[in-house]
Amino acid sequence: MQTVHDLETPSVLIDLDRMETNIARMQGYCDHYGLKFRPHIKTHKIPAIARLQLAAGAVGIACQKLTEAQVFIDAGGFEDIQIPYNIVGPQKTARLADQSLYNRMTVSADHPSVIRGLSEAAAAQGISIRVMVDLGTEIERTGATPAEALELARQIDEDDHLHFAGVLVYPSNPSIRPKLQELLDGLHQSGIGVDSVSGGGTGASLTAHEVPELTELRVGTYIFNDWNTVTAGWADVEDCAMTVMATVVSRPTQDRAILDSGSKTLAADRVADGHGCILQYPGAHVYKLNEEHAFVDLSACDERPVIGERVQVVPVHTCVITNLHNTVYGIRGDTIEEVWEVAARGRVW
Amino acid sequence: MQTVHDLETPSVLIDLDRMETNIARMQGYCDHYGLKFRPHIKTHKIPAIARLQLAAGAVGIACQKLTEAQVFIDAGGFEDIQIPYNIVGPQKTARLADQSLYNRMTVSADHPSVIRGLSEAAAAQGISIRVMVDLGTEIERTGATPAEALELARQIDEDDHLHFAGVLVYPSNPSIRPKLQELLDGLHQSGIGVDSVSGGGTGASLTAHEVPELTELRVGTYIFNDWNTVTAGWADVEDCAMTVMATVVSRPTQDRAILDSGSKTLAADRVADGHGCILQYPGAHVYKLNEEHAFVDLSACDERPVIGERVQVVPVHTCVITNLHNTVYGIRGDTIEEVWEVAARGRVW
Repeated sequence: MQTVHDLETPSVLIDLDRMETNIARMQGYCDHYGLKFRPHIKTHKIPAIARLQLAAGAVGIACQKLTEAQVFIDAGGFEDIQIPYNIVGPQKTARLADQSLYNRMTVSADHPSVIRGLSEAAAAQGISIRVMVDLGTEIERTGATPAEALELARQIDEDDHLHFAGVLVYPSNPSIRPKLQELLDGLHQSGIGVDSVSGGGTGASLTAHEVPELTELRVGTYIFNDWNTVTAGWADVEDCAMTVMATVVSRPTQDRAILDSGSKTLAADRVADGHGCILQYPGAHVYKLNEEHAFVDLSACDERPVIGERVQVVPVHTCVITNLHNTVYGIRGDTIEEVWEVAARGRVW
Repeated sequence: MQTVHDLETPSVLIDLDRMETNIARMQGYCDHYGLKFRPHIKTHKIPAIARLQLAAGAVGIACQKLTEAQVFIDAGGFEDIQIPYNIVGPQKTARLADQSLYNRMTVSADHPSVIRGLSEAAAAQGISIRVMVDLGTEIERTGATPAEALELARQIDEDDHLHFAGVLVYPSNPSIRPKLQELLDGLHQSGIGVDSVSGGGTGASLTAHEVPELTELRVGTYIFNDWNTVTAGWADVEDCAMTVMATVVSRPTQDRAILDSGSKTLAADRVADGHGCILQYPGAHVYKLNEEHAFVDLSACDERPVIGERVQVVPVHTCVITNLHNTVYGIRGDTIEEVWEVAARGRVW
């Protein structure tokens, strides 16, 4: 039986007990409040893990790219996939309208030109595509105003080759309620039925029950958690299922250690206190990353690691970690139970 | 004939004319000053590109991991590979001592325990491993002091299964000269021959001729350059061979555009003015990245892009881009001349 000691470093470990607890907790929360749950697979990109989420009660999955969706469809068992993203350009809309994809997919739009592109591709194939409207939120990313979104919904509703599939917001913090209510009132007055009101975000998942307009929640990071969710107060370090096992490869001074897990392994994301937490040395400060080097300040540590010692780093952002690595290892204790290829890694189209 | 217009976005484009100019310029500089040149392949991770560098006059390559080296050895034509890194742990030292690898490799060490590990692995195979000493520099990463490095050199020199292969510094800015001279004087007085004094760093490559102690230069980023090297004043934007072709997928406001090239595509690295330069809209400011979204401020732009328009982003750090993408496209004008798999992508061991 293989254990973590048989692995080289750096390796990405998934604590299966913690992952299963995280899956059950989020599904239980949604069940309790009558919310449909739709995990975002960007965090793991692995069909076998998504199947555990479906088995726990999820209604479907969210992903971000058509080529990611294709990986899950090819793997089998995924019939309800939402892409909360504008699908733009004739190549992508044609891909979406393909027989193997469109009937399992729901996409979103925040502009009339996006809707026209989807309509043309659907008309060319003689099919109908499900489209939600993307309502802008306080993060000022994509998304329309309530008035614009109402017009978009009308445009979709009136199009023979599109089906209006509801409203999408990210994140769905309670502060979005006034805009959401304005849009939903307008849709009601226009006699346009709303299949779904989908919210999302790991932080917003803590307060989804305070946004009664939501019918669905989509969250990704909850399954592993990370140093970002811990420092934001959304999770405890004991909820973190993913760690990067690294080796101390250099100890140039009393106060400095270098790990073999740089930005090629941990990604360059950081929070205020650095690039993650070393479980065995919580006082250590991962203050800088080069591609193959993590710089660690040990000055606050009583015990200090020696060259060759292995440590586990809770990374800042799990979703970008799985996009860097070809393989992750599911462990229980020290035993490796699962060797998972990150099947949808690198699917950028 | 395929052109960039046939590609979906995001796609990583390599301007072959510019890349060839960059290769010739750096090799010409080293030839002029009598420096051996050793390109670091971390920037491209592609054997076909490294062969162009060898053909121009490079003496060998540098890479950062044994599994990267294996990709190049398997590809054929690479017989002199330097890993400027401590190889630590019995799995890695055994891999290094393997028949297929060791005789092509030179590694480095900055601590007696690293040298002991290499020696034990070499002795177990009855072979000899080439080891350089890593002298610490102003970046305070790995590396020994001159006095420590002299002791390490003696330890290597006296070991039956190791060969002292010289001195390694990164970066090799002129400020390293006093330390380098101290170490080289000590080695001379100890009667220890020095095969090579290897410096590196894209910035340091501009002043390598001011460090006459160097016999070799290893640089990676020069082949593509990036927004980091441009903002540092080491290159012009016209020297940048790599761009990420992206699509404007949302225009939520007059001043904001969203591109389909987030941190999964451009990596999270940033410089003071943001996450790269949009060639077609140099006044635009890429101020934030989410995984699949680049946030662009257009307020300083007279002309502004529409949804569906394609742009090219000069990324902040090319080396991490190739670690994210499975494929890059070599172009001349709009024509795609090369479709390169990033063969050594994701080799973390």
